[in-house]
Amino acid sequence: ARPRVGYSYREDLGPSPIMERMLQLRVCSFKSMPVTVLENASIYDATVVMFTQNVGSLMVVGPDRVLLGMVSRKDIMKASLGKMDLQQVPVGVIMTRMPNIYMTTLDEPVLSAAKKLVQHQVDSLPVVEGYVDENGNECYEVVGRFTKTNVTKLFVEIAETR
Amino acid sequence: ARPRVGYSYREDLGPSPIMERMLQLRVCSFKSMPVTVLENASIYDATVVMFTQNVGSLMVVGPDRVLLGMVSRKDIMKASLGKMDLQQVPVGVIMTRMPNIYMTTLDEPVLSAAKKLVQHQVDSLPVVEGYVDENGNECYEVVGRFTKTNVTKLFVEIAETR
Repeated sequence: ARPRVGYSYREDLGPSPIMERMLQLRVCSFKSMPVTVLENASIYDATVVMFTQNVGSLMVVGPDRVLLGMVSRKDIMKASLGKMDLQQVPVGVIMTRMPNIYMTTLDEPVLSAAKKLVQHQVDSLPVVEGYVDENGNECYEVVGRFTKTNVTKLFVEIAETR
Repeated sequence: ARPRVGYSYREDLGPSPIMERMLQLRVCSFKSMPVTVLENASIYDATVVMFTQNVGSLMVVGPDRVLLGMVSRKDIMKASLGKMDLQQVPVGVIMTRMPNIYMTTLDEPVLSAAKKLVQHQVDSLPVVEGYVDENGNECYEVVGRFTKTNVTKLFVEIAETR
């Protein structure tokens, strides 16, 4: 048998250095800016914001950017199939409402956030900072969004790192 | 200086084994099934197909599944902002038409296809097989779709491989 000397790489010894690095990546370094609307904005206006900002989903917020819900292109498409007046109906009517929203935080590992995207079949997670308000309610302030686009960009970045 | 013996891993020697493996992955192993509609389907019917199949874009095809264009949720949202009758207008009117479609092939490396998704800001690429028909026209038969969801799933799979 050959003697083994120094730092030798073997996959069965655990994650490689690149994998180790991948596992340490946090959402804060790869998130995008949040794009938000108010609950009483019309579906029409929300759709225009989606276009001008070129995003696939909007976070619906109250005062202090507290997360109330999410509205996706899919929600808007569903609304336009019906007989709804998009200029009259507020986005709050069609949004997915808290607490039925999958979220992530600034310090969550990217891997774990990416798993949420896959498992829950959503394109985007709001990045939030949680706190308890003066009435004892749990609140989540929106500070970003984390999407399959962020993961795809990261994949390319990692694969191109030699 | 310590003698270097056997297989020693150093990042500056080039891609690591995991990176090498990543660079060898091909679209054929990670693509999804294509979801197609005919050019004369109404926008309404195309929207229903998007819902029932839960996809973000449809490939519009002619005979022999030849790619004619793509229609995305964004295209449909745009149509519903206007005064279009979604039940009357065919999807061919709002689709992005060939040759203005970014495509991939079964044997393209996943990295290169992922770069197309990022660079061209699209969520999905049709996977095609090209051929020349009896009239000398270049044709592309749709055999799959490759999306940011495929890349996100692959990212999770790689990151979890120890």
